[in-house]
Amino acid sequence: MTTPRPTPLSYEQAGVQYDLIDPLKVAAQRAAAATAPHLAGHGFSEVAASRGESAYVVDVGPFYIASIVECLGTKTLVADEMQRLTGRSYFAGIAQDTIAMAVNDLITVGATPLVVQAYWAAGGSEWFADAQRSQALVEGWKAACDTCKVAWGGGETPALAGIVEDGRIDLAASCTGLVNPKQRLSLGEALAPGDAIVLLASSGIHANGLSLARKLAERLPQGYLTEIEPGLGYGEALLAPTTLYSPVTEALWAAGIVVHYAANITGHGWRKLLRHPKALSYRVHTVPPVPPVLRFIAEQAGHDAAEAYGTLNMGAGFALFVAAEDAARTVEVARTCGIGAWDAGRVEAGPKALHIEPLGVHFSGESLQLR
Amino acid sequence: MTTPRPTPLSYEQAGVQYDLIDPLKVAAQRAAAATAPHLAGHGFSEVAASRGESAYVVDVGPFYIASIVECLGTKTLVADEMQRLTGRSYFAGIAQDTIAMAVNDLITVGATPLVVQAYWAAGGSEWFADAQRSQALVEGWKAACDTCKVAWGGGETPALAGIVEDGRIDLAASCTGLVNPKQRLSLGEALAPGDAIVLLASSGIHANGLSLARKLAERLPQGYLTEIEPGLGYGEALLAPTTLYSPVTEALWAAGIVVHYAANITGHGWRKLLRHPKALSYRVHTVPPVPPVLRFIAEQAGHDAAEAYGTLNMGAGFALFVAAEDAARTVEVARTCGIGAWDAGRVEAGPKALHIEPLGVHFSGESLQLR
Repeated sequence: MTTPRPTPLSYEQAGVQYDLIDPLKVAAQRAAAATAPHLAGHGFSEVAASRGESAYVVDVGPFYIASIVECLGTKTLVADEMQRLTGRSYFAGIAQDTIAMAVNDLITVGATPLVVQAYWAAGGSEWFADAQRSQALVEGWKAACDTCKVAWGGGETPALAGIVEDGRIDLAASCTGLVNPKQRLSLGEALAPGDAIVLLASSGIHANGLSLARKLAERLPQGYLTEIEPGLGYGEALLAPTTLYSPVTEALWAAGIVVHYAANITGHGWRKLLRHPKALSYRVHTVPPVPPVLRFIAEQAGHDAAEAYGTLNMGAGFALFVAAEDAARTVEVARTCGIGAWDAGRVEAGPKALHIEPLGVHFSGESLQLR
Repeated sequence: MTTPRPTPLSYEQAGVQYDLIDPLKVAAQRAAAATAPHLAGHGFSEVAASRGESAYVVDVGPFYIASIVECLGTKTLVADEMQRLTGRSYFAGIAQDTIAMAVNDLITVGATPLVVQAYWAAGGSEWFADAQRSQALVEGWKAACDTCKVAWGGGETPALAGIVEDGRIDLAASCTGLVNPKQRLSLGEALAPGDAIVLLASSGIHANGLSLARKLAERLPQGYLTEIEPGLGYGEALLAPTTLYSPVTEALWAAGIVVHYAANITGHGWRKLLRHPKALSYRVHTVPPVPPVLRFIAEQAGHDAAEAYGTLNMGAGFALFVAAEDAARTVEVARTCGIGAWDAGRVEAGPKALHIEPLGVHFSGESLQLR
């Protein structure tokens, strides 16, 4: 019996058109960069290397302050549909996803997240009247703060009829943290040939690639209730909450391990390993196991390995670049935190490129344009 | 000739149902408060008095860090309709409004805003394809950062089809600042009988009360093009950008004036003067001139003075509580910054209440429930 090859579905076909967003991004980045001199008037200065990184860093003297705002994206649409199908609320996990988007970005610069603010913009006041769902959102948010040891400072719960669709919610989180002591700054100055690439396990799709995942659900006769392996439904698997990685970065510092650079593997999948502007090659010799939901998506979308690893996290949600002699201990520290980890490769001298040896997949530096 | 009294329109009728949001808010506030002990693990502590205030404050030793995320609300719907009617983009002003929501709240605790992050969540990638509008948004954002002397750190520009309505955008800003030196903290410990109430002029409706304002537009035969005074259309007047007050609070500090407490007059109008939990009476003897657009809204909605001043800013966008001997200089400093200001009243011993003497309007402490 042969399974017919499904019609391929690219990220662009799933509705995200980067070319329309990018000119605005470029204009915004230029305008934003031009505001940095204002900090001097307050006696402070920007850490210029943080421009284009995952969090913005300011030198305020005794330490650095890092800050960020991050959107969850469209994962709530899966939770909404699954609630309709099962009667259960998935918003505790969704809350964790939202905080993860902010915290996992903030820690890449070496910051300890201190305060999270909630941004919950609903399509109408009625959204909050579903007590089970509201309570799940609050409890999940609190639990994620507890995991990350951050204070939940407050937030906004606007009702935005006419902007946010009726029955929907736009979720985001802002996060402020400190790089303290300042030696924890991990903007990649120390990133060099010989460094180890340690990959940390993802729990599934996390919160990137959901537009594609939702499009695929539309093509499945049983939609989100399709079994992707015995006892595991597609929707259920998609809604596994995003792993929070700040316990690992905090434990590494406590263990005396200096992180040279870190990359949160979100949109653009493993191409995020190419994030740092330095001309370096990244050679991966060990590929983590692929979560069933990601294997299923890649198969259903007709992705080859290059498209799958260039779009989805494929089992690696976060990358740490450390001195080779720290690789084994880094893996051990992460596992002690309950998070799978692999000493997966090495940084090499050479043109900017990522080589995923076991898969024969290669990405050039040009394949990731973030700045 | 008598003008027929228009059918009254309350804030609730305009679509905002606080009773549906409030139980969630209470649950969220309790859960948030329970996360504060995490800060001790990092060697820091929460400034507990900032819970329920407009920004959350953490003591990190040499200074306090304040942070916040704020939503613009539905003012973009007016800008969208006015762009359709006039062909012009109003998004430069809208950008200022969005930053004002965050900055004007952050400064109430005595913080100097340092970094702003942009949250621009569009209904689809197409939103960003309107180059005139995108450029206005970027330029207005930059200009507001320049006015407030903050660094624009970065942000998010997600395309959220299925969550944000097609053709719409959900705008928010997060802001991080420092209370530095720590004596600048203005959480109201020094607020006392005898203090002066200095009111700062608003530019119009700012960004609160827009649901009501939009409902009224639907009832006007000429809608947003209705002249509210010769040469001034209703939509144009509504879109006057929100005044940015951080230049005033910075100039006051530079002039050696210590602010005891500050209130950003947003939702709930002048009832925000009752924000501080202390049992104190606030007696206003001078009422600033009412911007034409607010006078028009109050008339059209059939509001009496109590409803108007309890809902809209009515010409006073920000309140500063200072020692009586500093009142005249506070007014002078604000005016030097180009912002109208009035020594408008006094704080008195007595039960929590606001007395707007010239209007015979009185609000009890129970009329504002924020905590």
